[in-house]
Amino acid sequence: MKLPASLLDTLHTIFGAHACSTDDAERLAYAYDNSRRHALPDAVVFVQEHAQIEKLVLACREHRVPIIARGRGTNTTGATVPVDGGIVVSFERMNRILRIDPDNRLAVVEPGVLNGDLQRALAPHGFFWPPDPTSSPWCSIGGNLACNSAGPRTVKYGSPRENTLGLRAVAGTGEGFRSGTYTSKGATGYDLTRLLIGSEGTLALITEATLKLTPKPSGLRTLRATYRDVSSAAHAVARIMAQPVTPCALEFIDDVALKLAHDHGGDSVPLAGAMLMIEVDGEPDTLASAVDAVSRAARGDGLEELRVAQSAEETQALWSARKALSPAQRTISPNKINEDVVVPVSRLPELVDGIRQLSKKHDVLIVTFGHAGNGNLHVNLLPRDDAERERAHACLADFFALVISLQGTLSGEHGIGLVKREFMSLALQPSTLSLMHGVKAAFDPDGILNPGKLLP
Amino acid sequence: MKLPASLLDTLHTIFGAHACSTDDAERLAYAYDNSRRHALPDAVVFVQEHAQIEKLVLACREHRVPIIARGRGTNTTGATVPVDGGIVVSFERMNRILRIDPDNRLAVVEPGVLNGDLQRALAPHGFFWPPDPTSSPWCSIGGNLACNSAGPRTVKYGSPRENTLGLRAVAGTGEGFRSGTYTSKGATGYDLTRLLIGSEGTLALITEATLKLTPKPSGLRTLRATYRDVSSAAHAVARIMAQPVTPCALEFIDDVALKLAHDHGGDSVPLAGAMLMIEVDGEPDTLASAVDAVSRAARGDGLEELRVAQSAEETQALWSARKALSPAQRTISPNKINEDVVVPVSRLPELVDGIRQLSKKHDVLIVTFGHAGNGNLHVNLLPRDDAERERAHACLADFFALVISLQGTLSGEHGIGLVKREFMSLALQPSTLSLMHGVKAAFDPDGILNPGKLLP
Ligand SMILES: Cc1cc2nc3c(=O)[nH]c(=O)nc-3n(C[C@H](O)[C@H](O)[C@H](O)COP(=O)(O)OP(=O)(O)OC[C@H]3O[C@@H](n4cnc5c(N)ncnc54)[C@H](O)[C@@H]3O)c2cc1C
Ligand SMILES: Cc1cc2nc3c(=O)[nH]c(=O)nc-3n(C[C@H](O)[C@H](O)[C@H](O)COP(=O)(O)OP(=O)(O)OC[C@H]3O[C@@H](n4cnc5c(N)ncnc54)[C@H](O)[C@@H]3O)c2cc1C
Repeated sequence: MKLPASLLDTLHTIFGAHACSTDDAERLAYAYDNSRRHALPDAVVFVQEHAQIEKLVLACREHRVPIIARGRGTNTTGATVPVDGGIVVSFERMNRILRIDPDNRLAVVEPGVLNGDLQRALAPHGFFWPPDPTSSPWCSIGGNLACNSAGPRTVKYGSPRENTLGLRAVAGTGEGFRSGTYTSKGATGYDLTRLLIGSEGTLALITEATLKLTPKPSGLRTLRATYRDVSSAAHAVARIMAQPVTPCALEFIDDVALKLAHDHGGDSVPLAGAMLMIEVDGEPDTLASAVDAVSRAARGDGLEELRVAQSAEETQALWSARKALSPAQRTISPNKINEDVVVPVSRLPELVDGIRQLSKKHDVLIVTFGHAGNGNLHVNLLPRDDAERERAHACLADFFALVISLQGTLSGEHGIGLVKREFMSLALQPSTLSLMHGVKAAFDPDGILNPGKLLP
Repeated sequence: MKLPASLLDTLHTIFGAHACSTDDAERLAYAYDNSRRHALPDAVVFVQEHAQIEKLVLACREHRVPIIARGRGTNTTGATVPVDGGIVVSFERMNRILRIDPDNRLAVVEPGVLNGDLQRALAPHGFFWPPDPTSSPWCSIGGNLACNSAGPRTVKYGSPRENTLGLRAVAGTGEGFRSGTYTSKGATGYDLTRLLIGSEGTLALITEATLKLTPKPSGLRTLRATYRDVSSAAHAVARIMAQPVTPCALEFIDDVALKLAHDHGGDSVPLAGAMLMIEVDGEPDTLASAVDAVSRAARGDGLEELRVAQSAEETQALWSARKALSPAQRTISPNKINEDVVVPVSRLPELVDGIRQLSKKHDVLIVTFGHAGNGNLHVNLLPRDDAERERAHACLADFFALVISLQGTLSGEHGIGLVKREFMSLALQPSTLSLMHGVKAAFDPDGILNPGKLLP
């Protein structure tokens, strides 16, 4: 596509020469994301004000030119790849924290603020924002909201949907609007806030967010439990979640992943059939009883060793296996297929057993770990060559069918984007999809916002 | 309106004679709700199965006949009053608890289940569903979801939006669909679940809900703090919410309300400038430190007395003032105007001061109490005769303007229904309302679901 000259003029007028580019180098830099897919945009603009977005959408609507919102491009699903060309809107320069308001337990931020920068700014006030993707130092709040991104703490504190009070945004119609409240409660009309959260830039561009803050507990204790096999670890997860003390992290790592991490990270990583990392938080004098409660639940058939870290260094050591995992995988397969399915916690044993069988059947290496407390596992297929790559793709279809049969769904936190679109009709009924298309049409009648993403 | 004979035939075929009525007596019984507004429906049907609703909506769509979903009619906003006639669908016979699944922290219920019945069924499993309207023994889960109804516990545990995993429903198009997941996390498409929550039966009829359960803490402690004046109590609320221990109830009662309750309930109700009821919950060995933390925050300028209940009887006694309030108000004004606005917690002092001034200016008695931890106050105007009634209505407009100027909104939990519709454009921008109308059109293109409610 070539942008009409009049639109290019308008872009220059809205953004100025320093924040609007059609250079090859710039377009290339914004052509791909962490999915490693890519497609060239026709222009890149760097927004700084809500009003610019209103003007941009109106102009693009007139010319039917796609607009792709972009935080930091760390998503894994191709959600920011401009498959139909158009204009990439980078929010990286719209990154001010507008207000931190501990009395009302809220913060108002621009979407380009990095998750990690926000957490650092909140810490002195004794608060945090619960969503904590591992990519926290590099990903933006806008991206977190648009993907409903989460992390280990979600098991206790919820995802962006449970931690956002209100938004300001511009719909595909060009209308700027506010949704939600500055209060922790509201029953005034339809919940457009949660509708935008997880919509991957296909309904509206978010220009401001009012986030709900949570007081940071002052104490934290870390436990590591190793098990004879994946099944006994999965059963322990279900026991931990069925008792009253909810851990603030409950991570699962299977034997294949442990072996990888051990080879890569050294002897501090235990070799076992499976491992759980468990954290509990709270005020210091409540921690001992919390550790007791989760320890009782972690014990049971198949437990090999349960260790409670007694110092900061020991905590670091316990987490070393989890930390070694990402780099270790890359040494095997630079093109890993990274899924993040979710099933009810009690079905985890069946899921991990099923994965094992699929790995054998299709002869692909599969490494499984993740946020077991939510039933959310990162399942990584690691093909080493083209033949394995083909087998891995065949395996995927079986794998999603397994997940759906266990009452699970395609994604717990990474979203759909480009790469999981074709599987949406496995997870959702035609009627549900048709209503989603209706919502899309109401917000973006011309289909200019992030075309080719999310909906099949 | 008179229903077409062919539609009446269809109703009989779908529901059978025992669950479908056009009798005057039956129609009268379903003409009104707790708002005391009323309007006769043309027929009343008692649904028991999802499939019946699909057929009903298709038939009504053909004839453009309104459908009004009804739980138990306890809402205060006229949300179930069939202002344009049509068919009231009562869910009272669709009231089975389909599954209680402690391992996955979820329950699957039909919409007619009473909130109180669900809580009783969950208790032996050690779980509860957080939304706890005072009407819990008489209101249905369907009504709770459709209004996003909440209660004292919301300050710590959230409203239905934070405590619902998925829904089954029938849209105004006649399409049955499922939304959400059986998991505590999901990023697979638009969040239709939260869109239906709070939509007051205007988008879809809910036929099944998957609710997220929370482990019931085994310990609870109750505190009562009295203050010199409303302003110092409101400041204490802000201090309590700014520290890490979140109470599971933080209720405010103003001096006018205390006086009323005292006159009605006797000497166990203290007379003071204002009062806070505070509860903290947790495992027993954590309670002492929680009580300390909230007590520290409750202390400060204007505190008169802080009492911690030492026994179940004392707890009962401390709550007596709050309990005496509803009957006491009725003795003064059978036609009280009951508002449930919400403002950021730190603006509570300004809100209660402003209410005081409006009460003087318009010369109406106003009683204020409610869920202060969420900034959600029940503000009751108590006119005693027609002249006062007129003044009260004039006062309302000023009152909402005050709330909006404090960054608050019209309703925290009761919703909009019929009675607050005209004020929606005070709270929401035209662009926000226009998107809501777009969503409405996508779900209910012919506008047959609960016409005349929620949207202006
Ligand atoms: C090493 C690594 C670890 C990761 N760990 C996790 C993890 O633990 N949990 C997890 O959930 N994810 C994780 N991710 C994925 C990714 O970091 C998250 O999805 C993140 O939220 C994306 O943020 P971003 O700023 O990079 O958004 P982008 O990738 O730029 O965009 C993501 C989506 O958001 C949309 N978007 C961005 N800004 C806006 C806006 N202002 N308005 C509207 N739409 C917008 C885009 O159009 C796109 O659809 C990880 C990624 C990496 C590389
Ligand atoms: C004494 C008293 C105390 C109260 N205390 C509180 C309180 O503390 N907090 C609070 O929030 N509210 C309170 N309320 C208000 C009321 O109880 C709640 O709004 C309650 O959730 C309504 O439930 P219901 O079953 O009576 O619904 P109804 O009044 O019958 O209906 C309410 C709305 O829900 C819709 N609806 C009902 N079922 C369905 C369905 N299956 N699908 C789609 N839409 C449906 C209706 O169309 C209507 O719009 C109180 C009311 C009373 C009388």
